[in-house]
Amino acid sequence: MADEAAELDEALRRQADTVRRLKQEKASPEKVAEQVAKLLELKAQLGTDEGKHKFVLKTPKGTRDYNPKQMAIREKVFNIIISTFKRHGAEVIDTPVFELKETLTGKYGEDSKLIYDLKDQGGELLSLRYDLTVPFARYLAMNKITNIKRYHIAKVYRRDNPAMTRGRYREFYQCDFDIAGQFDPMIPDAECLKIVHEILSGLQIGDFLIKVNDRRILDGMFAVCGVPDSKFRTICSTVDKLDKATWEDVKSEMVGEKGLSPEAADRIGEYVQLHGGLGLIEQLLQDPKLSQNKLAREGLGDMKLLFEYLTLFGIADKISFDLSLARGLDYYTGVIYEAILLQPQNAHKEEPVSVGSVAGGGRYDGLVGMFDPKGRKVPCVGVSIGIERIFSIMEQKVEASEEKIRTTETQVLVAAAQKKLLEEKLKLISELWDSGIKAEMLYKKNPKLLNQLQYCEDTGIPLVAIVGEQELKDGVVKLRAVATREEVDVRRENLIEEIKRRTCQP
Amino acid sequence: MADEAAELDEALRRQADTVRRLKQEKASPEKVAEQVAKLLELKAQLGTDEGKHKFVLKTPKGTRDYNPKQMAIREKVFNIIISTFKRHGAEVIDTPVFELKETLTGKYGEDSKLIYDLKDQGGELLSLRYDLTVPFARYLAMNKITNIKRYHIAKVYRRDNPAMTRGRYREFYQCDFDIAGQFDPMIPDAECLKIVHEILSGLQIGDFLIKVNDRRILDGMFAVCGVPDSKFRTICSTVDKLDKATWEDVKSEMVGEKGLSPEAADRIGEYVQLHGGLGLIEQLLQDPKLSQNKLAREGLGDMKLLFEYLTLFGIADKISFDLSLARGLDYYTGVIYEAILLQPQNAHKEEPVSVGSVAGGGRYDGLVGMFDPKGRKVPCVGVSIGIERIFSIMEQKVEASEEKIRTTETQVLVAAAQKKLLEEKLKLISELWDSGIKAEMLYKKNPKLLNQLQYCEDTGIPLVAIVGEQELKDGVVKLRAVATREEVDVRRENLIEEIKRRTCQP
Repeated sequence: MADEAAELDEALRRQADTVRRLKQEKASPEKVAEQVAKLLELKAQLGTDEGKHKFVLKTPKGTRDYNPKQMAIREKVFNIIISTFKRHGAEVIDTPVFELKETLTGKYGEDSKLIYDLKDQGGELLSLRYDLTVPFARYLAMNKITNIKRYHIAKVYRRDNPAMTRGRYREFYQCDFDIAGQFDPMIPDAECLKIVHEILSGLQIGDFLIKVNDRRILDGMFAVCGVPDSKFRTICSTVDKLDKATWEDVKSEMVGEKGLSPEAADRIGEYVQLHGGLGLIEQLLQDPKLSQNKLAREGLGDMKLLFEYLTLFGIADKISFDLSLARGLDYYTGVIYEAILLQPQNAHKEEPVSVGSVAGGGRYDGLVGMFDPKGRKVPCVGVSIGIERIFSIMEQKVEASEEKIRTTETQVLVAAAQKKLLEEKLKLISELWDSGIKAEMLYKKNPKLLNQLQYCEDTGIPLVAIVGEQELKDGVVKLRAVATREEVDVRRENLIEEIKRRTCQP
Repeated sequence: MADEAAELDEALRRQADTVRRLKQEKASPEKVAEQVAKLLELKAQLGTDEGKHKFVLKTPKGTRDYNPKQMAIREKVFNIIISTFKRHGAEVIDTPVFELKETLTGKYGEDSKLIYDLKDQGGELLSLRYDLTVPFARYLAMNKITNIKRYHIAKVYRRDNPAMTRGRYREFYQCDFDIAGQFDPMIPDAECLKIVHEILSGLQIGDFLIKVNDRRILDGMFAVCGVPDSKFRTICSTVDKLDKATWEDVKSEMVGEKGLSPEAADRIGEYVQLHGGLGLIEQLLQDPKLSQNKLAREGLGDMKLLFEYLTLFGIADKISFDLSLARGLDYYTGVIYEAILLQPQNAHKEEPVSVGSVAGGGRYDGLVGMFDPKGRKVPCVGVSIGIERIFSIMEQKVEASEEKIRTTETQVLVAAAQKKLLEEKLKLISELWDSGIKAEMLYKKNPKLLNQLQYCEDTGIPLVAIVGEQELKDGVVKLRAVATREEVDVRRENLIEEIKRRTCQP
């Protein structure tokens, strides 16, 4: 509902702009009248009067709030990802949410139009970060760092068409792990793929496949297929659409929009169907055309080495060398990869179906050099985990299982059996907090005992410490286990120890 | 240096704008020539040629990156704050970094000019969040929540004059804890102050004081001093400057800029010097003028109750009822508070000196109602911990102590004693990772053993698992403790258990 209202609101603004423009342009009175009529219709739909603005209560298009339940799932996912990054010895950094506009300029190719710019309010021109890779490269160049293994988890921003049910947002998290430095070939690259494998296994969200390719193999392929040098990047962007579009559509874009000859497109078409493992690499190393190309030979040689390392890591069975994988971004220079989740096979379909990409990355040896005043290069390779889709899947799993998720960690509720015990409750809860116990009380002077017990049932608090007049005289507190309803009197001086014992807290 | 270049860059842009404007306005040729000369001078300073832009490698003004060492400190601070919030049973939520512009409109009074707007790129008009309180109120109204205790830790944005050495940034973290709901008076308010006390004690950053006041007491005071109703908010903003300015300056702003009579200002001046505890509250409840005012009486009554609860919590000695505390923001309706760090007393000064505010908050019972279509109110009280200043202090402490901070958690480095053992290292490290051990290796085919040991010294890795030709034959791995240089042969099948035992991992 809120979204609908916002769309109407947007339509209204656009229509008002149109009318204003037509008047400025001194358009014919008929034309203006026609557009004014449309404007009035929209206003009627919104139920607003002239000059009175209807307030829309929503988050911006393509964004969402996280409620406590969603946050509990998010923290679970983050913990698995962060512990994997730390297991691989990564440090962590953070960068500002916006960068100088020029820092982002010329890094994203056709996707640059999706960057959010800030309004010029005087001072520097700024844009919201589009990914964490370009800020990382800027950080390395600015601090003259030539050697680091770091992770960075933060939100990035893209003015894309949102599809929120499938986990595509305009504000979304990326979890990036990157290795920068001059090293022996394919060792850091293989570790990035190992990390993707560990994370997707750890999350237990079903079967997955990691596609790999190499920009040098793609470029070599384009060369031997007869694509002019100047069209490598733009044809690469078109190949990247193969995961969503058919070959026919992709070919027609290559020939129609990008001006490639149909013959060259057909030659590309033969290559991009190929996928496999070491066998395919060997085959292509023998390919009479491709093996003549220096770039392709280098890429294939490294791909072979990569598969050897992945075999040593025991994960080669989940990796597919796939010539159709291109990746949209401009800055990749070597190995590229993308992980997709597979839906379980069913009777009607031969092969498992992709439900979309959940991780991607590759090697970008030139990006840091673009920022360095002297163009000094720092080779980098990294991976980005796209967790919004993973959240969506986890949320659906939780909904389906009817598993009850606690959104607090409270161990004990401080309750009162009679009225006028607020002061005693405040004294007791203060002691508990000061001893590190997670405790709550209702913010009422005289709540009913039943309401206090119900609160524990609702929120999953396991223990109740009940203050009563008789207990005060006896120097005890009644400790109740919510699950079993068992109650015992515990001497006041032993209460903290007893709560810690029962909740396994050191 | 980078900042200087950026300032020049800004000056250049401004000067170019001036020249353009003068030309448009058809100013006299002399005037234009004068400004063009200035422009050329600036260009010379920047060393740029016409049309050639000098790339500035920096983060935007008022922002900074966090390097791994700073992140380690940040995580330590966050852990103390988050565990306190959780100890008090708070849930957690998150909201987008930007809101519809109109969501922020009319909430911040004079500070609204500091809001970052996004560029209108079609679609909704957006602004970066200025605090976490207004998004929280929007969240409550949008989801019709009348009852929640939540925390939220996220960055907020203010186009303020940065003073980064003192921890004042344009992008900075807030750690907010709020209690929403209709409850008995002062119980949630007292808990917020208890939380501030627990966090500032837990951080061990020196002595502190929490000032409290109440907007109703301020409004009552303004009324009995003869401030017209329409000037309450603006005079309140001026009183808020008392922590940085002298009374003379504040009075001259009241009289000169805000048009208050000098007599009224002097009457305010008498009240705002007062600070104390329960005694002062009793005194003001007897004050012949103030006690006649209904708002002031209500505020003083609640203040008395608050102090009773704070005494039960055992924290009243760190709280000062201070009539000069006003808080800048418009939305407060009741109790307000601000925590300041105190510098240690020295021989020359009578009273400890404030080094600035590190937490603040209060009650805002009307804010949610501003978002609700039917104006339904949800009473709220909360506190925001301003951690940038705390980071600065912690960073200085770490620098001064020369304490070595680890930026990774790696437990073991997988090393090789001879050449050509890369495959063995890859197999071993893969096993370690799969068993949950935090392990690293150098990304070289044949690194020198000395370099591998040095890496452990530099990064604080406690153990080295050394693969060697003889060890491979014997089915063992040499395990070396970096600190003691002791080495023992461990059977390959016992290695994981032995590493876990030594690093106390279950």
